[in-house]
Parts: sequence; C-alpha cells; structure tokens
Amino acid sequence: MKKIINNPDHILDEMLDGFAFANSHLVERVVGTSVIARTYRQEGKVALVSGGGSGHEPSHAGFVGKGMLAAAVCGEVFTSPTPDQVYEGIKAADQGGGVLLIIKNYTGDVMNFEMAAELAEGDDIEVAHIVVDDDIAVEDSSFTAGKRGVAGTVIIHKILGAAAESGLSLQELKTLGETLVKNIKTIGVSILPATVPAVGKPGFELKDDEMEYGVGIHGEPGYRREALKPSKDIAEELMAKLKDAFDWQKGDRYGVLVNGLGATPLMEQFVFMNDVAKALDREGLDVAFTKVGSLMTSIDMAGVSLTLVKIEDEKWLEYYRMPVETTDWA
Amino acid sequence: MKKIINNPDHILDEMLDGFAFANSHLVERVVGTSVIARTYRQEGKVALVSGGGSGHEPSHAGFVGKGMLAAAVCGEVFTSPTPDQVYEGIKAADQGGGVLLIIKNYTGDVMNFEMAAELAEGDDIEVAHIVVDDDIAVEDSSFTAGKRGVAGTVIIHKILGAAAESGLSLQELKTLGETLVKNIKTIGVSILPATVPAVGKPGFELKDDEMEYGVGIHGEPGYRREALKPSKDIAEELMAKLKDAFDWQKGDRYGVLVNGLGATPLMEQFVFMNDVAKALDREGLDVAFTKVGSLMTSIDMAGVSLTLVKIEDEKWLEYYRMPVETTDWA
Repeated sequence: MKKIINNPDHILDEMLDGFAFANSHLVERVVGTSVIARTYRQEGKVALVSGGGSGHEPSHAGFVGKGMLAAAVCGEVFTSPTPDQVYEGIKAADQGGGVLLIIKNYTGDVMNFEMAAELAEGDDIEVAHIVVDDDIAVEDSSFTAGKRGVAGTVIIHKILGAAAESGLSLQELKTLGETLVKNIKTIGVSILPATVPAVGKPGFELKDDEMEYGVGIHGEPGYRREALKPSKDIAEELMAKLKDAFDWQKGDRYGVLVNGLGATPLMEQFVFMNDVAKALDREGLDVAFTKVGSLMTSIDMAGVSLTLVKIEDEKWLEYYRMPVETTDWA
Repeated sequence: MKKIINNPDHILDEMLDGFAFANSHLVERVVGTSVIARTYRQEGKVALVSGGGSGHEPSHAGFVGKGMLAAAVCGEVFTSPTPDQVYEGIKAADQGGGVLLIIKNYTGDVMNFEMAAELAEGDDIEVAHIVVDDDIAVEDSSFTAGKRGVAGTVIIHKILGAAAESGLSLQELKTLGETLVKNIKTIGVSILPATVPAVGKPGFELKDDEMEYGVGIHGEPGYRREALKPSKDIAEELMAKLKDAFDWQKGDRYGVLVNGLGATPLMEQFVFMNDVAKALDREGLDVAFTKVGSLMTSIDMAGVSLTLVKIEDEKWLEYYRMPVETTDWA
C-alpha cells in the first residue's frame, strides 16, 4: 500500500482538520465531532444533512455550503457514522426550519441516521429523511438490503439544496427527493480495486486484463467480470442496462453524470463521456445537462459510473443550475 | 496498462469531444482544432490563452470560462501543441483587446507559443506572453531549460483571469503575471509513476516502498529518492525547500495550493493539507487562501505538490476571490 498518510487510524481526524482548514471561508468542523457544517445560515429554512462512511471524497463534505448541504457527517473509512455523530450533524445544521436527511441505502447508514432523527426529535427539531438507492447493478449487496446508493446522490444534493434555499418546506423537499430517487439510476464498472488504509491491501482482486461491471463503492461484488473492453463497449453495456431500467422513449429528457471512482483520470472520464454522448444520440434522448468528474469515489478505485436522471419537471433543471458556494461543485 | 480508452492514438480527439459535449453551456471545441474556447465574450477586453500537452486535466480546458481563460490549446499527451494550433487558439480567444499567452516553461511550449504569437501579429492581433517556472525542484530538466512550470500556473490563470475580466490592459496583465511568477513556487513528490497511453508502461519506476521528491509533471527526474515517508515528513521536506526558496519572515502572507497529481485521492490530499497547516502555523505565516484538489495532474501519477504564493498586494486576493464560470474552479 502506497499512500500519503500518517497513522491509518487517524485518517478521518486529520482529513477533517485539513478539509476545515483549507475551506474555512465556507465550512467548519463542529468541535469534538466528525461533522463538517457550513458557516452560512438561512434562518427558518430547511437544512439538508447527508454523510456516511468516508472514502468517497469529495462526497459529502465537498458539497456543504450555500445552496447544497448544511452539514455532512463523516464516518470512519467505509463505516457508517454513529447515531450520536449524525445527531450532532442535525443540531449543527438546523436553522429552525427542520432537517432533511439524505441517506445512501446501506443498512448501517439507514439505521444510524434514523436513530439520530429520533434523538433530535427530543430537541424539538423536526426531521425527515429520504433513502437514495440509485445503483441498478444488483438487488441486495454486502452491506445493503435492496439497491445501493451511489453517485446519483450528489445530483439529489444539488437539486434539493437549491430547492431548500428557495424555501420549500420539509414535507415538500421529502416529496421532491423521493420523486427524484425514482428517476435517478446509476451503474458502474471497476478496473482496479480500492485499498482501505487500515486494511492495507485491496478489497478484492482483478486480473491484469480484467474488469467488473456493477462493483459497489465499497468494493461490493458486481454482476459480471470479463476482459477489459474499450470505452465504447463499456458505454454500450452501461447504457443498455440503464435502457432496461428506464424503458425510455425517443425524445425523453435526461440529465447525465459521468463519475470517476477515484484514481481514474479526467482524460479517461472524457473519452468515456464521448462514447456515452454517441449512445445518447443514437437513442434519440434529449440531454438536459451533463457533468463529468470524480464526485462519489471509492478511495483509489479505478473505474467510472454513469448516472441518468429522467427529467420530469423543468423546475428540477432550474434548481440544478442555481449557483452554489461549495468546495467541489463547480 | 488498464485504462478506459479506445485507441490510444485517438485519445486527444475523443477527450476534447467529450469535454465539449459535457460543457456546452460554457465552451466549444473550435471546429477542426484542438482548441477549447469559451462561448462567453467580453468585447474589447484582453483574452487569456494557455495550454500545452494533454494529460494534466483539468488543466487547462477546465479553467476556460468567464473570469479565467478565454481558450486552452490542447496538445497530444505530454506533447506541445503545434504553432498552428496555438494560432487557432489565439484567433478564437481574441475579443479585440489583445491576447496574453500563459506558457508553462517547457522548451517546446515556449517555442511553439512564440511562433504562434508571430503568426497572429500578421492578423493584427496584439499578443504578449508570460512564462511560468514555479517548480523549484531542479534547474533544467528533460524538456526544460531553467525551472519547469507546474501547478502554480493555475493560480496565475485565476488571478490574471479576474484581472482581465476587470479590464486591465495587455501590458498591465503581462506585468502582473511576471510579478506573480516571481512570487509563486511549487515542489512535489511522486509515489507512483504515470503511464502515457500510447507508451503503455510507466514513464519511470519506483520500488514498492519508494518515493521521489521533485518529479516533474511528465515524469522528469526529481532530486532525491527515499523510502516512503509519513505525510508529515513529506510536508516538512517540501516546506523546508520552499522556506529556502522564499526566505520568509514570520508574519509574511501566503496563499497555499495542495495539488493532487492524478491518482491520489482527496483523502490523502487533506491529510497532507493538515500537516502543511501545522508547518505554516509553526513558521508563523499568515495564510491568505488555501485550495486543495487535483488541478494540475500527470495522468495517473500518485503524489502531491505544494504551491505557495507570496501575497504582495491585497488586490491579488480580490482577483483570486472573484467568482468564475468554469467547469473545474469551484
């Protein structure tokens, strides 16, 4: 394992301090916690809180700021944050308008975020939650009942963040979030596994010429291994899976996210985007927005995921395009 | 070599098409060229053009947009763009106020950008240039007479971009750029080498427990190899080199950029940032701004660089903080 770290056991603490130091114009680390909260406050409006295990940077702390998340709760690497840490996140985020939790669908996250919501109700903070399960690769997985939550979560942060900033109520945001979840689907491919620092070796093995479709962002098994294919073949495979899942018609409108899984250079992400663009054109889909970058990573995993968002309401695009002040949404 | 590509010989073309497709709200690929130009125009103002070999994404195309570059000229991987391509970039960028070329100090880049400037003068476009040589690791290198230009270049894009947007003249921008170059210094460390797709194997070799200080962004040799050290020791080494170069006094004011070299996760970059923060504090330096991210990469090289900017004028910070509309400056 070659990593620029000190003690693997101190990574979360050091990373959060480094993040807060670098971005003190936007965020602070809540003292004694693993919560990154924005310094901007919008009294009376709903605050969004997300988070989960670390190792997915810039998710989620990189999306804390005006127009997106009010706070991110950061667990140890690939480990759900504890209920008390999520509770600290809720308290730090609350602006008096209630708090919406955006939870990726992993059993530990769902359980701990829900327990935290109960704690917060004792403080008279109104809390609601949505669960994101955009990964269509597999049903049920190592740490998940049902489908996993992956890169599509960031699109939900963006759209709900703008909606919260615009003054939607907690119930309205929950309803919008649940509608978005139904319309966002993701599938990916891994060509190199990730190494959790405290483990010291890759979480799974791939042969020198091998890739695996549908690997999860913690290295959970996917649905098929085969010899490494050209980008255009990978794009075809992922688009075919998404077509099955959405059952789209020519002329349907979609937003597109090509997400790098950590160690994959932008160069490859743009080559892949180009192949996806050709496939979108061939399918006759209307592209409402596109984004490319490493937004929901798996430490140093190499690979990409493709997220499509079926646009059912023009308002979603307005929210998507609203300016934000965060460290990682450009 | 495991990469998500099609034919290594077509990477530049496919990457540029993918980039332009994904970011059509901000940029376009100038037809028949390897130029990415912004769609925003500011008639009569100076336009900034940068570029160089590809493989450093998001540099430079990711910084094209309102408030930063007017165009980026993208060569083949690790290869200077030809004079005619730079000339196309100048013509696409020109808004009638002259064009400033921001050139990283590599012999091929300097020669080709200067030849392009001569071509443009035949079209009555006033062109000036600055050469960035912020890398203090070594004097002279594989492709460079003098010091190399690396991550500090992005800070120059940001500050000069805002200054151009604010209406400074070509001569004023050249002078400001030259002053900035004198006050920006960078040094890095590599723990894993990059693989140029058309070559198919790493550009140099490092043992499993080895790192190299001062490696260039094309894999040019650095100044010392040793066993992989903890992040805090790497921070000490790089800060000591920068201290020698700047000869700073307690209370001096600096901007800070921690730059990932491609495959290094943000997790490690923030751990390293935390160690740099401690060293800055110990030195008694006043931190004017900090930025962390993979801005000037070397394909899939793992490692980080540290850039310091000595702030000589508050105006620089005003320019640094001005909002931009690009794909990769958040």
